[in-house]
Amino acid sequence: VTAPELEKRVTSAVDAQMALVERFFSDLRVGTRDGEGVTRASYGAGEQLAHDVMRQIAVTNNLEISTDAAGNLYATLPGRDRQAPRWISGSHLDSVPQGGNYDGAAGAIAALAALVALKDLGFQPARDLTAMAIRAEECSSWFSGHHGGHLGSRAALGLLKPDELQTAIHVSTGQTLGQSIAESGFDVEAVRRGPAFLSPRNVQGFIELHIEQGPVLVHDKLSIGIVTSIRGTLRAREACCIGAYSHSGAVPQELRQDAVLAVAELIHRLDEACTRVRSDGNDIVFTVGKIHTDAKVDSLSKVPGEVRFTIDVRSQEIAILTQVSALLDEFSKEIAVKRNVRFELGRRTLSEPTLMDRSWRSHLITGASRLGIVARELPCGAGHDAADFVRAHIPSCMIFVRNTGDSHNPSEHMELSDFRDGLRLLTWFLATVSVREA
Amino acid sequence: VTAPELEKRVTSAVDAQMALVERFFSDLRVGTRDGEGVTRASYGAGEQLAHDVMRQIAVTNNLEISTDAAGNLYATLPGRDRQAPRWISGSHLDSVPQGGNYDGAAGAIAALAALVALKDLGFQPARDLTAMAIRAEECSSWFSGHHGGHLGSRAALGLLKPDELQTAIHVSTGQTLGQSIAESGFDVEAVRRGPAFLSPRNVQGFIELHIEQGPVLVHDKLSIGIVTSIRGTLRAREACCIGAYSHSGAVPQELRQDAVLAVAELIHRLDEACTRVRSDGNDIVFTVGKIHTDAKVDSLSKVPGEVRFTIDVRSQEIAILTQVSALLDEFSKEIAVKRNVRFELGRRTLSEPTLMDRSWRSHLITGASRLGIVARELPCGAGHDAADFVRAHIPSCMIFVRNTGDSHNPSEHMELSDFRDGLRLLTWFLATVSVREA
Repeated sequence: VTAPELEKRVTSAVDAQMALVERFFSDLRVGTRDGEGVTRASYGAGEQLAHDVMRQIAVTNNLEISTDAAGNLYATLPGRDRQAPRWISGSHLDSVPQGGNYDGAAGAIAALAALVALKDLGFQPARDLTAMAIRAEECSSWFSGHHGGHLGSRAALGLLKPDELQTAIHVSTGQTLGQSIAESGFDVEAVRRGPAFLSPRNVQGFIELHIEQGPVLVHDKLSIGIVTSIRGTLRAREACCIGAYSHSGAVPQELRQDAVLAVAELIHRLDEACTRVRSDGNDIVFTVGKIHTDAKVDSLSKVPGEVRFTIDVRSQEIAILTQVSALLDEFSKEIAVKRNVRFELGRRTLSEPTLMDRSWRSHLITGASRLGIVARELPCGAGHDAADFVRAHIPSCMIFVRNTGDSHNPSEHMELSDFRDGLRLLTWFLATVSVREA
Repeated sequence: VTAPELEKRVTSAVDAQMALVERFFSDLRVGTRDGEGVTRASYGAGEQLAHDVMRQIAVTNNLEISTDAAGNLYATLPGRDRQAPRWISGSHLDSVPQGGNYDGAAGAIAALAALVALKDLGFQPARDLTAMAIRAEECSSWFSGHHGGHLGSRAALGLLKPDELQTAIHVSTGQTLGQSIAESGFDVEAVRRGPAFLSPRNVQGFIELHIEQGPVLVHDKLSIGIVTSIRGTLRAREACCIGAYSHSGAVPQELRQDAVLAVAELIHRLDEACTRVRSDGNDIVFTVGKIHTDAKVDSLSKVPGEVRFTIDVRSQEIAILTQVSALLDEFSKEIAVKRNVRFELGRRTLSEPTLMDRSWRSHLITGASRLGIVARELPCGAGHDAADFVRAHIPSCMIFVRNTGDSHNPSEHMELSDFRDGLRLLTWFLATVSVREA
């Protein structure tokens, strides 16, 4: 297969798979509908239905099927060298409660449709190509208690700590993660015992197609994007400012300990600082998603004695996150002294940015250009399974597909023509990485 | 009675009344105790108990007793000229739920004890001096629906609109104000019909002693203060900023419509503007007592699409309040454009400051100095019955007594020695205004 010919063949082979793709999305929507959206709980009925649909398509198309101890599903197009580390593509099949139909599922079916397209082309890859349907990526909606998130991919990659099998508690059934895995028919003891099902020894790379969770591609009028990195986060989930309640008319301003004015100053100064960081060309976003005076005691005519709030800062650069963390300390100390209040910022968590593999990113850019698809690079602000593959030292990359609605919301929407661009690029990528590595 | 002798005689006559005062406070505390505090609902059992105690003291001391149609109680030391407009002193006997024992009651017993002291001195005033126990000043705690507050004094002064008898609804009994007045044994038809029981034709002036509701006298280590004016208020009870919810990681800052960052900027800029107003020597206090993102949908990782908040600005100068109101418009418009959000500030109410009578204020300053009491002038931030007398064109003034605890709270506390300073000044004032006007 020569290069110009490849792009033509990939394009027509992918177009032939669109009926399969449409039926998949329709089966999932009908089977897991919940009000306006869909609900596919991690290790729940909706997720299982989606796995069953995936498996049936893989069976119909004569792909090799396997399942790991945590219930992740693998459908493989065998390569010439069965011993060579394989390429994996995929995403998760669970969803947030009443979420959108494409978040996760688009990446799983894209991987499977790419393999079917390549198979239909009579293409035999140099090494195994595997479509992976991942469990429990949205587990923070479904499991409370202590756990590190992304339970399915982390179990497959050996990153799940045995403790999490006990400490992650399903929000509706009350079962532990271990019980939930066992109940779903998988091998919790093998998860606990290891070894990891996936590792750099048997996986050469991972590529994930995912619907974008922000408006960048809509804003730039592009069907797909190529992810540069997954932003790291600096978070304070339980920040608090303590002042003193007093009468809003009878107490002079200079004798007050006003928690709202203190927090407003803190937020505004952090906002200004982040704006400066951005105007210096660095990546940063800053969010205070929750702010509340105490509804039990607050009043129009009472100086507020307490405010609770959250802080979420994200950046592709760890240095920027540590810089903002230092500013948070500096500003809150200054304001506490000036305004006679006390800040209790609570536990602050820092998660490092995850860089997508530079070489495969540039290969994706090449592919988009060959296929005549205009794509841009963009950072990713949300967590994805791909980040866990990077943490397990498996080079990874991601393709984003434009989302014309919201994320984690029934209004999430993806045009099939946009998905098709993403699927063309993914299929081309899997065909070419396999050839290149042969 | 010559002047230097008057101060001595007032001082010793007042000191002789302190046992009566202590018994009054004790009877009220025991009779209306509710947990740590006291509860005396407007037109309720606790308020009635306090009126009964007042009446009994007046009877015992042979003062003339009368009641108006709304149930306000009057105890009068007759003057030489019974036709001359009288001086009234007093305050309310109701309280907020689980409030302090002194808020209101201190001013009612002070008026009565002053008259008893003057009577014991064999002092016959030139005109009637009347102690008034006022109903329903704390009615905003007890009556919901539409009403203008301070129901007792406003009824006595003819300021109550007949509608309010229907539209004010008792929060626990569900009765209208009219029904509550009738149920308490008073003449609701006469309240409705008028004429006003008190007017500038039959009242020359009003003086109210009240426990301070702020910390100014504690801060300045003074037992009493003389009120300059009751601050006016600019209020927005239901202000709101509407942005758009989105993902805190996936949406670039410049594409966000972040309601929290917008409100933080608005609050901080208003705070800075008010600080400038104060540093120019003007009176202003600024409070945002309530701020809430929507707890049903907010999240650490969601750009906030809505914030609700309150604004309460108080000043002794109406011009300052209108200036801040204009700044609120200016800032919110600028910020809305800059941050792509919408402010819905809701109904804004402006109540004018109420100036205490300059001539009687300076007479109080003279009195404090003659009595050897160090007092300061200070603004009053809360509403008081005295403001209604001013609105009815009756010159009024107020004495504040130091509060070593909080206001509208069981921790409210007044030292009896501080009260005694206030009572000395009040008694001296009533003796001298009566002489001066004879």
